[in-house]
Amino acid sequence: MTKKYSYLNGKVVLTEKAKISIHDLGVMRGFGVFDSLRSYDGVPFLLDAHISHFHESARLIGLKPPVGKDEIAGIIKNLVKKNGNPDAAVRMVLTGGESDDTVTYNIETPTFFVTVEKIQTYPPEVYKKGVKIISVENERRIPNAKTTDYILMFSLQKLKREKNAFEIIYFSRGRVLEGSTFNFFIFKGNKLITPRDGVFKGETRNFTLSFAREMFKVEEREALIRELKTADEAFLTSTKREIMPVVKIDSLKIGNGKVGENTKRLMAVFRERVDEFVARNRGL
Amino acid sequence: MTKKYSYLNGKVVLTEKAKISIHDLGVMRGFGVFDSLRSYDGVPFLLDAHISHFHESARLIGLKPPVGKDEIAGIIKNLVKKNGNPDAAVRMVLTGGESDDTVTYNIETPTFFVTVEKIQTYPPEVYKKGVKIISVENERRIPNAKTTDYILMFSLQKLKREKNAFEIIYFSRGRVLEGSTFNFFIFKGNKLITPRDGVFKGETRNFTLSFAREMFKVEEREALIRELKTADEAFLTSTKREIMPVVKIDSLKIGNGKVGENTKRLMAVFRERVDEFVARNRGL
Repeated sequence: MTKKYSYLNGKVVLTEKAKISIHDLGVMRGFGVFDSLRSYDGVPFLLDAHISHFHESARLIGLKPPVGKDEIAGIIKNLVKKNGNPDAAVRMVLTGGESDDTVTYNIETPTFFVTVEKIQTYPPEVYKKGVKIISVENERRIPNAKTTDYILMFSLQKLKREKNAFEIIYFSRGRVLEGSTFNFFIFKGNKLITPRDGVFKGETRNFTLSFAREMFKVEEREALIRELKTADEAFLTSTKREIMPVVKIDSLKIGNGKVGENTKRLMAVFRERVDEFVARNRGL
Repeated sequence: MTKKYSYLNGKVVLTEKAKISIHDLGVMRGFGVFDSLRSYDGVPFLLDAHISHFHESARLIGLKPPVGKDEIAGIIKNLVKKNGNPDAAVRMVLTGGESDDTVTYNIETPTFFVTVEKIQTYPPEVYKKGVKIISVENERRIPNAKTTDYILMFSLQKLKREKNAFEIIYFSRGRVLEGSTFNFFIFKGNKLITPRDGVFKGETRNFTLSFAREMFKVEEREALIRELKTADEAFLTSTKREIMPVVKIDSLKIGNGKVGENTKRLMAVFRERVDEFVARNRGL
């Protein structure tokens, strides 16, 4: 097995030696934020947007990355190259750092690390046939911050398996929100609707909207659960999944239960735009 | 400074060398449970109850402690002795362990550790005068599990300081619940009321109820926010704070704004019962 490297508090280290104190507030209190992105053919995708959002998440919960945005970009580019995975899953994490009493922390001495792993992708059938998701009531407290609290996700794994679902989407007070790791969209005819409030607006979501606006009428607004019944198509977006069609939610078939034409068009343009991004940013 | 020791995955180690992987799901995903207790004069207080509850918390989120209850008790007793802090804060933590993809985990290879620190107590005035707390709307998703997700607590520290509050209590849909680290009680005359559902029923709460039942009429039930207006006394309980009187909630003065007689009686009996427990369990 080839050696893997991570970045931890100022140093590039062998991943197997990248360790933090058990007194770190990231593990004692789940006090941390993160962001994840992927590289395509060695080029970190939407790198600057992810780093900016990471800084914003940190600010929202009272943390401050110990290094600036440009420096983080440099760390990530170096690590992707060093690990020799052109198609990698990159993750940056910031926690409150060590604390003796599990409450007090120094904003100047957080724990900051970056990991790079081979990306796990999905088989082509998933994109051809679309997936089934199920819904659960939940609303995150600090939706604009990408925090490291995924207890709910883990506690719902059993339900997901039992229901034979690909993923779980959260709703609250009649509104459709997001999944634990994705954003959600529906089409009504040629109108594309996606939630704007109460969700973490991921970079893949924002990137998708940037070209969807050239192709469709886009509404960023509250999406109501009852609108799902009249939706013609649905899909989710995330760093890892890109644009993934959704054909069933609980027992409700979306449209005719097949991947819709508008979604297919967006998926094709997504691919083109990624290629453009990679070509433009190669060697930077 | 004297050397401190912790227990980590099967071994007693120097605390400064007790480290876990950055790939641990405890830090990557905040996927963990814990329990904390204190020792009085070298005797871990309510040890068995805390360990049982810890096992139950683990079960509820899909984890399993790698060692049995008796073995955990032995680890804690040994560590309290070895660290030479007769009055110590003990904390046991269990996480999902290491994961390459930050989702998949093996229930058989979790991370389990125990820390022992000198307990931080509060000045006597706090107990003589009582404290002011403020309220925030929040309801935990898995209230019966003591999970490591304290993002909300950290994000509310600024508000707490601004409002000059000692602690924050959560309410939801008209009901009073609990704080991030304590349970809550009110007296109406000689009737003691404390929430039963939607809260983590801490060991200090249960212990307090055990002797309060001999002294007062006790109701474990939904406590409504509007009942606070007619409450004569209020207090909170936790491992670290024991029984601490509450005399103000937001702008509402509880009773006459002074520590009530019933609360004082409970505090006195609490002290007696702790002494009895310590005498009974010394040397075990």
